[in-house]
Amino acid sequence: MEKRQLGSCVTFFPQPTTLIGSLDEQNKVNLMTASWAGIVSKTPPTIAVSLNKARKTYANILERGEFVVNMVPASLAVEADFCGIRSGSKVDKAATCGFTFEPAEHLQVPLLAESPLNLECRLVREVEIGDYRLLLGEIMQVHAIDSAFNGDGSIATPRFDPLVYLGGIREYWTLGDKTADAYQIGKRLAEEKKEDKL
Amino acid sequence: MEKRQLGSCVTFFPQPTTLIGSLDEQNKVNLMTASWAGIVSKTPPTIAVSLNKARKTYANILERGEFVVNMVPASLAVEADFCGIRSGSKVDKAATCGFTFEPAEHLQVPLLAESPLNLECRLVREVEIGDYRLLLGEIMQVHAIDSAFNGDGSIATPRFDPLVYLGGIREYWTLGDKTADAYQIGKRLAEEKKEDKL
Repeated sequence: MEKRQLGSCVTFFPQPTTLIGSLDEQNKVNLMTASWAGIVSKTPPTIAVSLNKARKTYANILERGEFVVNMVPASLAVEADFCGIRSGSKVDKAATCGFTFEPAEHLQVPLLAESPLNLECRLVREVEIGDYRLLLGEIMQVHAIDSAFNGDGSIATPRFDPLVYLGGIREYWTLGDKTADAYQIGKRLAEEKKEDKL
Repeated sequence: MEKRQLGSCVTFFPQPTTLIGSLDEQNKVNLMTASWAGIVSKTPPTIAVSLNKARKTYANILERGEFVVNMVPASLAVEADFCGIRSGSKVDKAATCGFTFEPAEHLQVPLLAESPLNLECRLVREVEIGDYRLLLGEIMQVHAIDSAFNGDGSIATPRFDPLVYLGGIREYWTLGDKTADAYQIGKRLAEEKKEDKL
């Protein structure tokens, strides 16, 4: 494949779109849009979020030791983008967006009610990387929208409707079609090639 | 929204699907499927990849100090899943998949030719988290498929065709429709609400 060199940059995708919930010194919820968020361990369950050290959310999380990762659905693209271009120190972003909150189980920070997937996190470590801080949060509880579960326990993925962010390209996209089940479709190649007998 | 509690687990999405390229002691390329990969800093451009410390790829990267993050397109879902369920110490995964390689600019590890987006990374730090190791790689060069760039410099995102992974649900999906431009659509809400004047 012919390639073009983009230099040393942060073009990488697909990424999640999240709203990171934290509490400020007045106990007011602040929401910050973040796409630099991802699972980093199963033992214990841990998610990492990276943000600029100048952000109010960073100060809030350091002070309180907890945060919520709220997954953004495609229906809230406008609101999520708004929360990314405005600072919580200047405007009440949640009120402007008409967001509501539900209590968390383990934290004082509440869950964003309009998000179909909320992860309650307790800050366990901080890693300095230039102007950014990678915050590692132990996942205490995961809340998922009830209507995404079918009667047989299977999951209706489109009900989550996650908003996909393309870093570098700066575009939001929806999910399209299901390609395959993971940890399954690859077995087809293993059987075709009989690679275990080579 | 009514929610269901899933406990302390690693259900989180959407995530990227990548093949992490590394060189073993015989200079043979090993490819490991990873969805726990994401940008963590712009200063300097840094990507983090988390993997189990028992993986051959972990040993390779520690030994060589370099790796390539190859973004997986939807057309390679079978091959990527195969590379996730087989170990490079038992089978030549790249050969089984029919993959080819191109030389990198800064590294000895080559780029996966069939991937539309390759990030050359130099290992700069390692963070222990239980059985996992978060490897921070400084991004030295980004290679993007040339046909994704239109004549006017704009990007035809569908040409990248990134495979989206849903962690916890264990499904691969394609991208659907473009929802909006980031750092743009949120301005609409700011104007409607005239929040700057409040």
